[in-house]
Amino acid sequence: MKQLQLIWAHPRADSLTAKVAQAITEELQQRGWQVTELDLYRTGFDPVLQPVDEPDWADPDKAYSSEVMRLASDLAGKDAAFIVFPIWWFSTPAIVKGYIDRVWNHGIFYGSGRRLPFDSVRWIALAGESEASFTKRGLDKSMTHLLNVGIAGFCGAKDSQVHILYDTLGEQATDLPAHHAALLVQARRMAAEWAEAQPGA
Amino acid sequence: MKQLQLIWAHPRADSLTAKVAQAITEELQQRGWQVTELDLYRTGFDPVLQPVDEPDWADPDKAYSSEVMRLASDLAGKDAAFIVFPIWWFSTPAIVKGYIDRVWNHGIFYGSGRRLPFDSVRWIALAGESEASFTKRGLDKSMTHLLNVGIAGFCGAKDSQVHILYDTLGEQATDLPAHHAALLVQARRMAAEWAEAQPGA
Repeated sequence: MKQLQLIWAHPRADSLTAKVAQAITEELQQRGWQVTELDLYRTGFDPVLQPVDEPDWADPDKAYSSEVMRLASDLAGKDAAFIVFPIWWFSTPAIVKGYIDRVWNHGIFYGSGRRLPFDSVRWIALAGESEASFTKRGLDKSMTHLLNVGIAGFCGAKDSQVHILYDTLGEQATDLPAHHAALLVQARRMAAEWAEAQPGA
Repeated sequence: MKQLQLIWAHPRADSLTAKVAQAITEELQQRGWQVTELDLYRTGFDPVLQPVDEPDWADPDKAYSSEVMRLASDLAGKDAAFIVFPIWWFSTPAIVKGYIDRVWNHGIFYGSGRRLPFDSVRWIALAGESEASFTKRGLDKSMTHLLNVGIAGFCGAKDSQVHILYDTLGEQATDLPAHHAALLVQARRMAAEWAEAQPGA
């Protein structure tokens, strides 16, 4: 069975972000994927990197904190990762940044030939703003470049893409519940199309 | 007396980042500035935004957590802010991102005509890599655009610049202590030139 790690972050368990993560999980499970969830908020993940988790550039085999080693080992054997989050300041919330800072660490997922155990990474990002508002300063491109090239690509993942769900605040929607339902459909469709494009699908 | 807020982040109090923050502080104090320090690590700042600190888009006067209100009020009356940090993943460490997420919040420093109380922001960022290595993928431009336009500019600060101190790991240096001393001189010079360009200097 194909294995996917779903990592997501939002302060509220009843948020639209949570519902997007759930919709994607259900869509993939219906297509035969085993989805392992990491809910960064509810598991109490601490994004603050302490000295124990600083890289030792001379030692790619450095043992990091037990939390980091456990979260890194969770990616072993996986075929892909989806990361679901609200966009704050044209980038990831601090808790997602800290997951990358601490867990996607030197000697684990980059350096000395190490890499992520899969090629496919999807960043599913919820933007409060409309697409026109969000993209007008080119900050969408800065975010996409960082996530695809600076992070996933840096860790050897050759197939990283960002999918943005726009206007979660509904400034351009006359019916907010209907708009949110449409965003969930969009997330499911993205996951379905991704699954159909995978090897052996 | 001119007031400057210096915000800095590094897991180790004896790091090169700490020394850069100290050198900048001394340089500015010698030039008559009063520098207020916020050491995000040693003050135990928690970068994880909880529901109490989520914006209420309908209420720009929302009262956030006491920690956020206190840290926001620390910027009142300041003439500038310097933010000093090591570059991790071509961006800020999670603890700095969370400071922005939580403290530079809706209704405090943006939205409904609110803004930062100053125009001048300097991001002093330490890169482990050499300039050639760091800039080859354009990720330096993504970071600079986000910090200047997406964050400081979004909060009304018209004079935001990023200064990068390169090759802190010394891959291109034959004498690492001498190279680090030169980086401290570079940081002091940047602060001195900035101070000389300020109104009333």
